[in-house]
Amino acid sequence: MIKIVAENYIKEEYQEEFLKLTKELIILSREEKGNISYHLYQDINDDSHFTFIEEWQNQEAIDEHNQTKHFTTIVPQIKSFASKPSRAIKYKEVQ
Amino acid sequence: MIKIVAENYIKEEYQEEFLKLTKELIILSREEKGNISYHLYQDINDDSHFTFIEEWQNQEAIDEHNQTKHFTTIVPQIKSFASKPSRAIKYKEVQ
Repeated sequence: MIKIVAENYIKEEYQEEFLKLTKELIILSREEKGNISYHLYQDINDDSHFTFIEEWQNQEAIDEHNQTKHFTTIVPQIKSFASKPSRAIKYKEVQ
Repeated sequence: MIKIVAENYIKEEYQEEFLKLTKELIILSREEKGNISYHLYQDINDDSHFTFIEEWQNQEAIDEHNQTKHFTTIVPQIKSFASKPSRAIKYKEVQ
């Protein structure tokens, strides 16, 4: 299992549009065979700070995800809403 | 539910000790009534980068956790192993 923590900082004026797009991205991503879980969280202390926490079976599943139509169309739009660069870290479980 | 993502950067010479301490911290934290889940992950691209991802029922559960013996004895030791400042973000679920 590979866990991805992907942080995004979204300008206030785009947050509504962002939440619409991420809803679609999440629904479609959860349908992918290699996906285990896919959730979006908002920083309690910073409304502009949204973080995806995703679980994938392996790197192959991530590579497939990154080539899907929903990823390649929605993620660039999300990046255009950013107030700061996004940050994605891939993790393996230790304990 | 409140999710905490707590990032730590641990000097190489302390990583073994760190993993021993965190094992104890995790076992005891999971036993707390307000805890939902508590896991430790390692950055696939940076061996020194360890992140706890925790789920708590509410802020009260977190406040109780922060006063437990295991937290107040183990967490300062973990911080003494750090190569860089730790970073903890509290999240609420959006989607």
